[in-house]
Amino acid sequence: MSSVDAGDGTAGPAVVDLLGVLAYAELTAFDRLAEDARLAPTLAGRAALARMAAAEIGHHQRLCDRLGELGLDPAAAMAPFTGPLDAFHDGTRASTWLEGLVKAYVGDGLARDFYREVAAFLPDPDRGLVLDVLAETGYADFAVREVRAAIAADRRLSGRLALWARRLVGEALTQSQAVIADRDDLADLLITGTGDLNGVADLLQRLMDAHGDRMRALGLNP
Amino acid sequence: MSSVDAGDGTAGPAVVDLLGVLAYAELTAFDRLAEDARLAPTLAGRAALARMAAAEIGHHQRLCDRLGELGLDPAAAMAPFTGPLDAFHDGTRASTWLEGLVKAYVGDGLARDFYREVAAFLPDPDRGLVLDVLAETGYADFAVREVRAAIAADRRLSGRLALWARRLVGEALTQSQAVIADRDDLADLLITGTGDLNGVADLLQRLMDAHGDRMRALGLNP
Repeated sequence: MSSVDAGDGTAGPAVVDLLGVLAYAELTAFDRLAEDARLAPTLAGRAALARMAAAEIGHHQRLCDRLGELGLDPAAAMAPFTGPLDAFHDGTRASTWLEGLVKAYVGDGLARDFYREVAAFLPDPDRGLVLDVLAETGYADFAVREVRAAIAADRRLSGRLALWARRLVGEALTQSQAVIADRDDLADLLITGTGDLNGVADLLQRLMDAHGDRMRALGLNP
Repeated sequence: MSSVDAGDGTAGPAVVDLLGVLAYAELTAFDRLAEDARLAPTLAGRAALARMAAAEIGHHQRLCDRLGELGLDPAAAMAPFTGPLDAFHDGTRASTWLEGLVKAYVGDGLARDFYREVAAFLPDPDRGLVLDVLAETGYADFAVREVRAAIAADRRLSGRLALWARRLVGEALTQSQAVIADRDDLADLLITGTGDLNGVADLLQRLMDAHGDRMRALGLNP
């Protein structure tokens, strides 16, 4: 038995963990996008965010359906992750429309990259499913356009939003470490999947490089 | 030229008003369901409400697409109705999970019946579109089940929720009167569609009968 295979061809504990954490992440993404939609300065912006929230709930549903197929209770699979994910969101509640956009683009981008790296270690069909629900929902272009336009109109926003992004990354690292420390199978998967601790270091470097690209796309100093 | 036909086969002002008010109603329904989802006592209940919110945003999109087809700006068509609808929701913000369910079932049920009556006076394709987006999204059964179970567990809830429902109806009437007083074309459509003031009285009676049925379905005194 391994972390990705229970020994009889069924999903191992790390697969269940990944499906569970993602299912809850999609549910909280829905919540946050729906909340941030209310901060939108226009009806069109509000509807755009609401549509993205709706897409997340579609992904949540697919992950829950898969957990059900595996004979598992989706709520039980999500339960270990509600604490850390709620703590992340409570600790980084956007107070303006632009903070919400930066959080969704930079924070979700980082999480998405991480989950995608882990998914590469999974057998199909779960690898395919995870990569599929991680596909972009049109948010990125929208966020980049809005944030760049706002910074062009008021240069002082750039420093303030860069600081906000650094706080997001700090809080995300804190909560990820808490999850990994608590879920041995996920930690195993990460080490055996990447090969060794050097492999983990390379993975972190790739995540940080992509994060820097996103910051620059917004016009922010990484 | 009439309120439903601009004289050249294109949609008249009452049709545009109805599409506009419904488009904004769906956007606020999304907001409210997303907000109430956070009051859910279980992850399954929270996901159920989030899915219903997602369905509303799909309806909103279809109405905006139709307004676009008619050469209109959806935001402009919604604008006259944001004040009254926001006032309704601000004045009836649910403070518990059960209040949210009663509001969605009783309040939306009443609104849905009213829009359905008005849609009957429209030419196709708008009549078909409106009836389509007014179709149930699975909310009713869910709300009835949850509220009945809660009342069975605590009889005192029945009186409190009935009072809450009466407050909802009162606030809905106040805001509808404000809309009708302000939108001559909608008022015209209502009078000419029903035939005369007796026809309007009959329409109101049908709305009140259906409202009573919904209250009884929840186990509440109308």
